[in-house]
Amino acid sequence: MVYDGELFHMLYRAQGEDMVSRIGYAVSTDGIHFNKFEKPVFSPKSDDELYGVEDPRITKIGDEYYMVYTAYSPRGVRIAMASTKNFITWKRYGVVIPDIDNKDAALFPEKINGKYVMFHRIPPDMWLAFSDDLVHWDNFVKIASPRQGMWDDLKIGVGAPPIKTEYGWLVLYHGVQNTGTSRPIYRLGFMLLDLEDPTKVIKRSKEPILEPEEDWEKFGGVPNVVFSDAMIEYNGYYYVYYGAADNCIALATIPVEKVMKWCRE
Amino acid sequence: MVYDGELFHMLYRAQGEDMVSRIGYAVSTDGIHFNKFEKPVFSPKSDDELYGVEDPRITKIGDEYYMVYTAYSPRGVRIAMASTKNFITWKRYGVVIPDIDNKDAALFPEKINGKYVMFHRIPPDMWLAFSDDLVHWDNFVKIASPRQGMWDDLKIGVGAPPIKTEYGWLVLYHGVQNTGTSRPIYRLGFMLLDLEDPTKVIKRSKEPILEPEEDWEKFGGVPNVVFSDAMIEYNGYYYVYYGAADNCIALATIPVEKVMKWCRE
Repeated sequence: MVYDGELFHMLYRAQGEDMVSRIGYAVSTDGIHFNKFEKPVFSPKSDDELYGVEDPRITKIGDEYYMVYTAYSPRGVRIAMASTKNFITWKRYGVVIPDIDNKDAALFPEKINGKYVMFHRIPPDMWLAFSDDLVHWDNFVKIASPRQGMWDDLKIGVGAPPIKTEYGWLVLYHGVQNTGTSRPIYRLGFMLLDLEDPTKVIKRSKEPILEPEEDWEKFGGVPNVVFSDAMIEYNGYYYVYYGAADNCIALATIPVEKVMKWCRE
Repeated sequence: MVYDGELFHMLYRAQGEDMVSRIGYAVSTDGIHFNKFEKPVFSPKSDDELYGVEDPRITKIGDEYYMVYTAYSPRGVRIAMASTKNFITWKRYGVVIPDIDNKDAALFPEKINGKYVMFHRIPPDMWLAFSDDLVHWDNFVKIASPRQGMWDDLKIGVGAPPIKTEYGWLVLYHGVQNTGTSRPIYRLGFMLLDLEDPTKVIKRSKEPILEPEEDWEKFGGVPNVVFSDAMIEYNGYYYVYYGAADNCIALATIPVEKVMKWCRE
């Protein structure tokens, strides 16, 4: 999801009867009512995507929309990238981080100290990678790990491209808690990173900002999950779009001022 | 329909269970396979559109797409206009030619002798109108009439915004033939207008270029009708998009060179 000042552009994963994930497009003028295309706009094209393409995160850089996504194949999941200006025709870069089992990627909207920056996830931790050209990524740095005894004690991953604030980079992330059963709980929280050096974590939510409460968040294809790919600033609120129980897309909002207060504290 | 060099943008009329016509959007990279939005992108908003909005014809002027369409209400049908850059958000001009029973409009893609030019139809003839600002239209000039004993002997109307060629403005139009029954036949033909003075008709198709032949063109909501709103030049062909029997949208192509030969003859 990205908001261009006039339209909300949503990319979302959907699965057909063949169980292959593809990416659909929906557009909105208010962030709430969407008009969907009947057919996907981005589908698997390579052996790295035999099981599908998932988790699209969009970042506008210059006049191009960059989508990082999960390429899923018998080899495992990996981070891939494509770009577009119109959400219909795409330039494909393929897998940009070759590590297996790496996903949960998101691009920063601007260069920092002359480098492009991307979140990625080497389980169970959140990492950054750096690049000169958006295609070749190196200098992997681990920035955050699960916290024992807390809501994010099993694994964590970025939930949306970061938003620049006066206090730092505001990052939505998901935390998974080990419940001692085969059903961990996915929740959402905030992380604040240093503007100049985003490998420095300034603070993290002690409690989650969103957790499964509704029936449609608790029961479904993957139960007890709220999992986000996008957060938009709009009309004084952050709009958090998230997948609920792997079945539907939902929206939660939180006043920007409330989050800024947390940043300041 | 309009082709921007990368995408085919289709606006089409569809009717819901309430029998009100609305305008949908579909996009394509090849002009043949389209991806449709599930909901309309342009719906009635005023008393002039109580029965619906129909017959969208798109012309790109500057960086804006202008749609002229039929506003249908208990008062009758009239020509209305709206413009957009993204096919989602619209600027509405409302009815631009107040005459009742006037429809079949299409805008020229550029000013001619300092004026914007629009086709319209005061039954049974084809007319032009001129404007300084695209909103106020006057100086109505009748340019063509039905031809007795021919395929267009009952009424005629423009079928697509004109395409500029070295020989003149190439105009697709529909002709209606009186069959002596309550079921006239709608066919398509070409008209060539003078580049400098489009009120001068250089020539017209003696025979139609397209007529109902297939079952789905002969039988349907309005039988025996091929009725076009768009013609695009693409890869050496003219792509003619037309409604068949008021039920479906079809595509017919004709080589540009074949049409140019007719223009030269």
